[in-house]
Amino acid sequence: MSRSPDRRPWRGESPGAIEYHTTTDHEPTTTHRRTDSNPTEREPLFPRLPRRGFMKAGAATGALGALSGCIGLLDDEEPDTGAAADVDAEVPPGELDDYYAFLSGGHSGDIRVYGVPSMRQIMRIPVFNVESARGYGFDDESREMLEASGGYTWGDTHHPRPSQTDNTYDGEWLFVNDKANGRMARIDLEYFETDAIIDLPNQQGTHGACALMPDTRLVFGVGELRVPIPNDGRDLDDPGEYGSTLSAMSADPFDHEWDVRVDCNLDNGDSGKEGEWFFTTSYNSEEGVNEAEMTSADTDYVVAFNVPRIEEAVDAGEYEEINGVPVVDGTEDSPLNDGDEPLVRYIDVPTNPHGVSVTPDGQYAIASGKLDPTCTVIQIDRLNEVDDPNDAVVGRVNLGNGPLHTAYDDRGHAYTTLFVDSQVVKWDIEAAVEAEMGSEDPVIEKHDVHYSPGHLIAAESYTGDPQGDWLIVLNKLSKDRFLPVGPVFPENDQLFYIGDDEAGMELVKDTPAYPEPHDASIVRADRLDPASVYDPADLELDFVSADDEDNFIERDGDQVRVEMYNMRNHFGFEDISVREGDEVTIRTTNIENEEDILHSLAIPQYDINVKTAPQETREVTFTADKPGVYWIYCAYFCSALHLEMRSRLLVEPAD
Amino acid sequence: MSRSPDRRPWRGESPGAIEYHTTTDHEPTTTHRRTDSNPTEREPLFPRLPRRGFMKAGAATGALGALSGCIGLLDDEEPDTGAAADVDAEVPPGELDDYYAFLSGGHSGDIRVYGVPSMRQIMRIPVFNVESARGYGFDDESREMLEASGGYTWGDTHHPRPSQTDNTYDGEWLFVNDKANGRMARIDLEYFETDAIIDLPNQQGTHGACALMPDTRLVFGVGELRVPIPNDGRDLDDPGEYGSTLSAMSADPFDHEWDVRVDCNLDNGDSGKEGEWFFTTSYNSEEGVNEAEMTSADTDYVVAFNVPRIEEAVDAGEYEEINGVPVVDGTEDSPLNDGDEPLVRYIDVPTNPHGVSVTPDGQYAIASGKLDPTCTVIQIDRLNEVDDPNDAVVGRVNLGNGPLHTAYDDRGHAYTTLFVDSQVVKWDIEAAVEAEMGSEDPVIEKHDVHYSPGHLIAAESYTGDPQGDWLIVLNKLSKDRFLPVGPVFPENDQLFYIGDDEAGMELVKDTPAYPEPHDASIVRADRLDPASVYDPADLELDFVSADDEDNFIERDGDQVRVEMYNMRNHFGFEDISVREGDEVTIRTTNIENEEDILHSLAIPQYDINVKTAPQETREVTFTADKPGVYWIYCAYFCSALHLEMRSRLLVEPAD
Repeated sequence: MSRSPDRRPWRGESPGAIEYHTTTDHEPTTTHRRTDSNPTEREPLFPRLPRRGFMKAGAATGALGALSGCIGLLDDEEPDTGAAADVDAEVPPGELDDYYAFLSGGHSGDIRVYGVPSMRQIMRIPVFNVESARGYGFDDESREMLEASGGYTWGDTHHPRPSQTDNTYDGEWLFVNDKANGRMARIDLEYFETDAIIDLPNQQGTHGACALMPDTRLVFGVGELRVPIPNDGRDLDDPGEYGSTLSAMSADPFDHEWDVRVDCNLDNGDSGKEGEWFFTTSYNSEEGVNEAEMTSADTDYVVAFNVPRIEEAVDAGEYEEINGVPVVDGTEDSPLNDGDEPLVRYIDVPTNPHGVSVTPDGQYAIASGKLDPTCTVIQIDRLNEVDDPNDAVVGRVNLGNGPLHTAYDDRGHAYTTLFVDSQVVKWDIEAAVEAEMGSEDPVIEKHDVHYSPGHLIAAESYTGDPQGDWLIVLNKLSKDRFLPVGPVFPENDQLFYIGDDEAGMELVKDTPAYPEPHDASIVRADRLDPASVYDPADLELDFVSADDEDNFIERDGDQVRVEMYNMRNHFGFEDISVREGDEVTIRTTNIENEEDILHSLAIPQYDINVKTAPQETREVTFTADKPGVYWIYCAYFCSALHLEMRSRLLVEPAD
Repeated sequence: MSRSPDRRPWRGESPGAIEYHTTTDHEPTTTHRRTDSNPTEREPLFPRLPRRGFMKAGAATGALGALSGCIGLLDDEEPDTGAAADVDAEVPPGELDDYYAFLSGGHSGDIRVYGVPSMRQIMRIPVFNVESARGYGFDDESREMLEASGGYTWGDTHHPRPSQTDNTYDGEWLFVNDKANGRMARIDLEYFETDAIIDLPNQQGTHGACALMPDTRLVFGVGELRVPIPNDGRDLDDPGEYGSTLSAMSADPFDHEWDVRVDCNLDNGDSGKEGEWFFTTSYNSEEGVNEAEMTSADTDYVVAFNVPRIEEAVDAGEYEEINGVPVVDGTEDSPLNDGDEPLVRYIDVPTNPHGVSVTPDGQYAIASGKLDPTCTVIQIDRLNEVDDPNDAVVGRVNLGNGPLHTAYDDRGHAYTTLFVDSQVVKWDIEAAVEAEMGSEDPVIEKHDVHYSPGHLIAAESYTGDPQGDWLIVLNKLSKDRFLPVGPVFPENDQLFYIGDDEAGMELVKDTPAYPEPHDASIVRADRLDPASVYDPADLELDFVSADDEDNFIERDGDQVRVEMYNMRNHFGFEDISVREGDEVTIRTTNIENEEDILHSLAIPQYDINVKTAPQETREVTFTADKPGVYWIYCAYFCSALHLEMRSRLLVEPAD
């Protein structure tokens, strides 16, 4: 199995490369490939247009215009105000939603939790960002967790995926990637809190993220950005030596188990339902380093990883340890890919595919064309039967311009976003298998969205049993759909009712979203059972009760240790005296048992705000480097005497 | 003018103080007043209950129970699902809201922008927090602004107040306090961005925040936490020497002008409509340092500041300069308060008042009792006529338990939150002036809210011309109103329609809010005119066009300077080579003219994400301390080729 050399037509000389900046031999900044200097007069991006009816709608304005944005196509449209009057998506005051939706926060670094169908944002869970209202990154434990995984203050979450048992959400965990820094995080769905982060040392830009099905034994992070492995300064400008990895972690405990290395890049991912295959797209089989190079080949890959085979190789010691991680060779020419049961299979799909998702029945993996108007249907069980993995392709349906992601209902329909056309296409999966390759016949309906949709997600679409009622389309542009709020626009998460095939898709709500959700999972409310009060046994720090013996201030040299409870409307101590330069550790427990009664320990001008929910214990360490009086206060408005809930930190000057 | 000594009955010996921890004389941690060790068996907090029908509803369970939370009173209630079916608060897809609501984010440190009546959150504006999606705290300019105002990574916003001209919102600025660190910030409503922060060096805990009316010439920050002034280690445990300040800033340019020092603490504030008086509450006239002390006196103050008189004093040099700020003596015994026109007037109101707000017609300042069931009505123009400022009190209406804040419609009604009763009371302002002191007769209606309301705000209530249609009640507890999301509950911003006096207040929506909004301003949509694209002339950094001469990489020793444009789907350079240890500055301009097309410059593992909206230029400086290949990418999904919009940072190892 080897790639034909013409996959990299740009090799030899990069067509867009110019010598721009020359300095002495001793300067590393000798050469910079500069993007063409006048972009408005650039050559078309695609000197070789793909063969299939590529970007038909954009043909008149040129491929660049069509790909660069859909705006030209949309500006003249009348706004769609056609909410269906007959769909009841209102959740009156005092009533609860039917579903949780977990939406990635993108480069905000967090997870947003919505109720569906109200589309009310009921919580934000900080993951890779520092967030003061929840004290995340402020108390010692969360600060150390962030520090140990790289010390970054942001991340780029894309794919929030809840754990499953028997292809059904089990309410245990939620996993999400960090595209910015090559990490994966785990959120405890009992407490709605990030409880573990893994830094993936052989991966830059963890993009796709997904758990193994039917039971979440393993979690996968998919490396998008090809880099030298290890990325320690070697092979700096030798992209042929770069590679990507698929990283596997155990779900609980959350540990990094192994990587598989490939030459191409990887992008989105999804798991088969049978515990065997994991699929990712690759849009850079060319191993290019710029847009022209990455888009030059007519085809790229769906990469299929045979998980049990990889585990066998790891167990057999058939790996190289890099950065402490067993790395299995999954490249096309790897000896492990020879023979009857290759570790990794490379399936050709039209150029620069993006999303891949597995149908609820586990039969098919469907990959979206992005720069090609089709989705490709791969029959999963054929991967074990065919010599040429391309023979597992059983359908290719022509949907429209810029297909990115596909979601599912419970009635055999797929829903695919068209980024360029700003539409969602509903189509029939089995009809696509039966139709000719490239046919439009399986298309049932197209519905405008507003505007430029990325992901979309239907209720429990990623499980074996989608609910078939609600669909959220995550639009990247909102433009005229909300009151103007300056040059940073919200995104637009649009809610559709899809439960009535006769009436068709019904647009119900526009929901502004802070930039920017990329993907979501929608979970039936009864599958979760969050705690409203901490179980002290679940926390690492000992509970500080209101008893005298639990509350103390102890000095050891310049180390001061304070343990004190808190409750409406007091801290255990009314004042805490220390000396300038002391290292102070304060542990505090909220001893309340009443749900929704939170307190925090905020210290002005010391940049400290540690929240404690009922029965929760947290600890914070700081250096008392400013003399004076600092009023420790509770930043959660907790009672009529909330303002009076205070303690004084008295820092005596060193002199 | 002097306080009677019995205002401080606890002086001499603090009744709750015990010797808890004893070490050697050389240790500063010699004595700590500890809160009573067994709070469940504590003495009642109020040895002397106020004389007026204080906390009637709570009498059966004791004052502590009533004050510590309303939960006991609410647990048996049926949830109120009574949304009014006849009020049209829906905003269908594609339609726009009538109002902007600016809600403080509390200890999240930001401002949330809602559309009303949809209650959709259309934007968040980071103010005192660091926020990666908007690049706030990541580019050099915003990072330096945060650094220059203390270097804190969070704040505690409470009172977002838009600027006004002629007692009407003018769409220019929004001001907000930082209760955590003694700061005020200004947000530019053209760009919805924080553009200036002032550190108030003589103030800890800037709580109230408001602009002078009728024209926002001055902005005020109200100091809540009494501290030594300056707070440099002096008078550490001598609370009698502590004080608070009212700080005044000019609106534009945003400069700190002067402080007025008082002995008591200050809390919430509001301006008269005539450019003369500014009002604050004080709940700690006792100058206490714990809850028992602060609640010991029967009365505290509304403090009225005569702004023109203070300015005269400043102009006349009648101040002491502390930390570079002119500080005028406004204490009760100040010589400046003798004579016909005192700078500051102290009006007695029932114990521990909280909110104070001025009626739309400018006639009255209304202060809420908090620990007293009444609101006190002060006739503003009488302050210039009476010798004893208490003679300006013209009404006192008995509303219920825990009155906190009052908003207004356009028909002479006040709406006051009752924290303990979990209700909003609608009452008649003129009837309160005409009724006997302490009467309940002015009350028109009480409506349950869910639960424990703090602030409330009606449309344009803070202006001279309230709109009288929508009212948002900012509840501190949500408990059972939303799907459970773990031990951190959202707050509940409830929307009421108040436009139909005959039908009464109608609850329309429950809206979950991330912890935690304290106050809000609601502005008619047509009063704002935000830009959707930057005007390069408004930015300090020069625009980087796509022209060759604007794009360069220059080295000077170990300083590397990069200037490059960005657009769909490129950065100006495809690669940037530097050496380990270089200090690298990258300036980049988004050269697009199309609204809603944002890009960012994200650098993996370098903790950098700088957003550029159309026509915006930003700059970021960092040390290239890690060798390897780092893929600069755009974190805003901007086109079908978004993933391919990348540039390589190549960091050559130092060795």
